[in-house]
Amino acid sequence: MNRAPRPDAVADPASPHALRRLTSVALDALADGAAARGGPLPAGGPDTVAARTRALCAPVLPDEGVGAEDALYGIARAAAEGAADPSDPHCVAHLHCPPLAVAAAADLVASALNPSMDSWDQAPAAAVIEEEVTAALAHLVYAGRPEPDAVITSGGTESNLVALLLARERARATGARALQVFVGANAHHSVRRAAWMLGLPTPVVVDCPGGRMSPAALDRALADCGPGPALVVATAGTTDEGLVDPLPELADVARTHGAELHVDAAYGGPLLFSERLAPRLAGIEHAVSVTYDLHKLGWQPVAAGVLAVADAALLEPLSLTADYLNADDDTEAGLPDLLGRSIRTSRRPDVLKIAATLRALGRRGMGATVEHCVGTAAEFARAVDDHPALRLRAGSPGISTVLFRPVAADALPREAGDELVAAVRRDLLAEGRAVLGRALVPDADGSPRLWLKVTLLHPRTTADDLGGLLKLVTERAEAPMTAGTGG
Amino acid sequence: MNRAPRPDAVADPASPHALRRLTSVALDALADGAAARGGPLPAGGPDTVAARTRALCAPVLPDEGVGAEDALYGIARAAAEGAADPSDPHCVAHLHCPPLAVAAAADLVASALNPSMDSWDQAPAAAVIEEEVTAALAHLVYAGRPEPDAVITSGGTESNLVALLLARERARATGARALQVFVGANAHHSVRRAAWMLGLPTPVVVDCPGGRMSPAALDRALADCGPGPALVVATAGTTDEGLVDPLPELADVARTHGAELHVDAAYGGPLLFSERLAPRLAGIEHAVSVTYDLHKLGWQPVAAGVLAVADAALLEPLSLTADYLNADDDTEAGLPDLLGRSIRTSRRPDVLKIAATLRALGRRGMGATVEHCVGTAAEFARAVDDHPALRLRAGSPGISTVLFRPVAADALPREAGDELVAAVRRDLLAEGRAVLGRALVPDADGSPRLWLKVTLLHPRTTADDLGGLLKLVTERAEAPMTAGTGG
Repeated sequence: MNRAPRPDAVADPASPHALRRLTSVALDALADGAAARGGPLPAGGPDTVAARTRALCAPVLPDEGVGAEDALYGIARAAAEGAADPSDPHCVAHLHCPPLAVAAAADLVASALNPSMDSWDQAPAAAVIEEEVTAALAHLVYAGRPEPDAVITSGGTESNLVALLLARERARATGARALQVFVGANAHHSVRRAAWMLGLPTPVVVDCPGGRMSPAALDRALADCGPGPALVVATAGTTDEGLVDPLPELADVARTHGAELHVDAAYGGPLLFSERLAPRLAGIEHAVSVTYDLHKLGWQPVAAGVLAVADAALLEPLSLTADYLNADDDTEAGLPDLLGRSIRTSRRPDVLKIAATLRALGRRGMGATVEHCVGTAAEFARAVDDHPALRLRAGSPGISTVLFRPVAADALPREAGDELVAAVRRDLLAEGRAVLGRALVPDADGSPRLWLKVTLLHPRTTADDLGGLLKLVTERAEAPMTAGTGG
Repeated sequence: MNRAPRPDAVADPASPHALRRLTSVALDALADGAAARGGPLPAGGPDTVAARTRALCAPVLPDEGVGAEDALYGIARAAAEGAADPSDPHCVAHLHCPPLAVAAAADLVASALNPSMDSWDQAPAAAVIEEEVTAALAHLVYAGRPEPDAVITSGGTESNLVALLLARERARATGARALQVFVGANAHHSVRRAAWMLGLPTPVVVDCPGGRMSPAALDRALADCGPGPALVVATAGTTDEGLVDPLPELADVARTHGAELHVDAAYGGPLLFSERLAPRLAGIEHAVSVTYDLHKLGWQPVAAGVLAVADAALLEPLSLTADYLNADDDTEAGLPDLLGRSIRTSRRPDVLKIAATLRALGRRGMGATVEHCVGTAAEFARAVDDHPALRLRAGSPGISTVLFRPVAADALPREAGDELVAAVRRDLLAEGRAVLGRALVPDADGSPRLWLKVTLLHPRTTADDLGGLLKLVTERAEAPMTAGTGG
C-alpha cells in the first residue's frame, strides 16, 4: 500500500470510494497497534506511553501536512498501541465496554454521512430512525404508559443533567421554593454536579447503609425538608458496586411526600432487555424519568446515552424555536421539528449504531448478552470466594461488578492494607498486564476500605478467561513493585 | 457476500478482522443508498422519506434479531438513501459540512477502540493526543499568552455553556451580584439557552444594526446595568449571515466597564488557520474564552467543538475528584487526571479525527481549504449579483454565507414575498433537488425579510458547480408548487 502523501486527495470528502482506501489504512493500523501493545494496555506507565504516542503523531499541527494516509496511520497506530483495550479480558476497571463490531461499523456511517439531528433538512432519514429507536427505548422502561418518550444523550451525565433541568422547570411552574434534590451517598457524582450547574440548592445526601439508599432515611430527609418541590434520585447499578436501590420502597416514600422519583440506571437499565433480569429493576416504572446508557451494558462505542420519560409532555421545557432550524411556517408545512430533543444543537446521530445493534440482536439477543455478563460476574465471584488468598466483599457481585481484596491486605493495618490494594492495581497498570478498578466502600464493620473492582461487560469473556487475572493479583499482592507504590 | 444472519457472530467485539467485513457492508450500503437517492436529499418530502426508512429498518427492536450484516445494511442503506448529503454541491443550507474521508476514517478508530476520556486507564494514548491537539488549538487563538488551554466539546452550544459556567463561577467568587450576560441580538440561541440552564439572569440583548453588535449600544447597556460581574458575548461568524462583530471595539468597551469578553466563533474561528483571513478576527485574543467548531469550517463529522481559554487556570471550576477515576493517591503516583476537562464523564475521543485531519493538512492546508470556501462564496455572490432575477443582500457574503432573494419576491407585498421565498426553499426540498437555508434578517430599509441562505463549506465545490442552483431557484420562484406552500 502506498502511504506517501497525496496532497491532492487530502481534503477529499468521505465518499464510499475514499473511505474504502482509508478505512483499510485505519484497520491495518489498529491491527499493527494491537500486536505491538500485546496486552490489555501498554506497558511502562504514563511517561512511556506519552513518549511513544508523541513519536507517532507529533506535531499534530505541522506547517505542512503529511498527507491523509500517513497522518491517519500514525494517529490510529498511536491510539491502538496505547489503548486500554476493553476487548481484552483483563481490561475490566470501569463501565467501559468492548464495542460491538456492528455498532462500530454503523458509527462509521454516522461519520461519513454526517447528519446533524437538529433539523429535518440535515437528517431526513436519521430523524425517522431516531424516532423508531427512542420509541422502543421508552417502551422498554414504560411499557404500561400511553405515551412515554426518550431522548438520546451523550451519556448518564447528560441524562441526569436533563432530568434535573426538567424537574427544575416543573418546580418553577408551581411558583413554590426551588427544587430540592435528594440523592443517595451511593449516587454518581454527576447528580451533584448537575445540581451545581443548574444553580439548584445543594442536594440533600441520604444514607446508604450497605450501599443502597435507605427508605427510612429518605423518609426522614423528606420530612425534615418540609413541603415543596422535591426530586429523589435513586440509583439502579451503582458505579462502585453495581447495587440497585430498593426502588419500590423509595417510590412509595417519595409518593407519600409528594416528591418525584428519577432513577439513574446508567448501568442497570439494560437489565430490562432480559425477561429473567428485569425484575431486579421492579419499581423503575414509578420514576418520572430514567437515565440509562447503552455504552455500558449495551456494547456501544461512547456516546449512547438515553433519558426516558414517563410522558412525552415532560420534555416540553426543551422546546425551542430558531427560525433557521424550525420556523413556524416550515413546521406548519409539515417539516418535522427536531430541535426540542436535546440540549445540544448540532448533534451526531448516535442512534444509528444503536439501531443497527438492536435490530441485529433483537430483544432476545440483547437480553441474552446482558445475562452472559451477569452470569460471568457470578462465576468470577465464586472463583474469588474459593481462592484462599482473596476475600470477596459481602454482597458482591452487584449486576456484573465484583469487589475483592487480597487477604494480604487484610493482614495489615487499615491504611497500609489500602496502600497495598492501590499498589497492586497500579503495578499491573504499569506492567501493562491488567486494568483493574478500585472502589473505596465500607467493609462489613462499617469502616471504609479500598477494594479491587472488576466490572464485567464483555459479551464473550467467560470466568475461565479470568483465571489469569486472579493469579496476577495474588502474585502482585505478595510482591508489590516499588515503582507502582509511590510518586 | 453472504448477508444471512450469523447469530454466533452478532455480538462480536470490534476487532480489525470483524470490522473489515462489516465496514465493507456499510460502504456498500452507503454507495447503494447514494445511488438510489440520486440527489442532495431524497425526493418526496417527510412522509415519503419516513415510509421508505421504516421499510428498510423497522422494527428496530424485533424479538429475534436479524443478524449483524442485514441490520447494518438496512440501517446504513436507509440513512444514506434518506440523507441530506453535505457532500453534494446543492446541499448548502446550514453550517453542516461535508466531512473529510481522513476524519471519518479516524472516527472509526474512536468507535473501534472506544477509549473514554475521563480517566488515564481508559485512554492512555488518546489522552496524550488530546493534550497535543488542545495545546495547538489554544495556541491558534492565544499565540501571545504564556499558558492558554482548550477543551474539546460537543459543539458550540456546549462550548458556550461551559464559557458561561466558568464566568458564573468567577463572578460567584467575587461575592458580588450574579453574573450578567450581554449578548447581541445576532447571537446564536445557545447563549441565551445556556444562561437559562445555568440559572443566570436573562441576558441583556444588545442592538446589532447591520447584523453586527454595536459598541455604542454595548457601552450604554453596560452603563445602564451598573457595576458588577458582566460577560459580553460577541459573535465571530453569525449563523444567519456569517458576520463578524467589531471585536477590537467591543473588547475596548468591555474593558472600560470591567466586563469580560467571550467570543462565539463557532463558525469563524477556523479563519485563524489562514494567514490571509486571520486579520478578520483581530481582537479575538482579548477574549477570556473563545468557542469554535471544527465541524463547520474544519470538515469534521459532528462533534468537534472547541472552547479555548486565555489561561489554563480558568478551567479550574471544572475540576472534580471521584475516587474511582482520579483518586488523590493515583494522581500523586503519576497517573494523569483527565476528569476536569469536560462537563461530561464518559467521553468519546473526538480528538482523534481532529488530530488526523490537522496532521494530514497541516496549518497551510487547513488555511488553504478555509480560503477555498470563502473564495467560493465571494464568487457565488458575484454570480447572484449579476443575475437579473435575483437580488444579493447588501453586505453579503459574510465569511462563506450568501443571502439573496428572487426579484419576484421583492415585487410582492412583504408577507407574500416572504411566503414565496419560503415556498421556493420547501419546493426544492420536497423535490429532492436542493437544500437551501433561510434567514429572517432586516433588509436595507430596516424591516425584516426572509432570505434564501447558502452556506458554503465544501472543500471542493466551486462557483461553477453552483450555477445549477441559481437556475433551480429562479425557475421555482416563477412557478412555485402548491405542495410546498402550505400545510
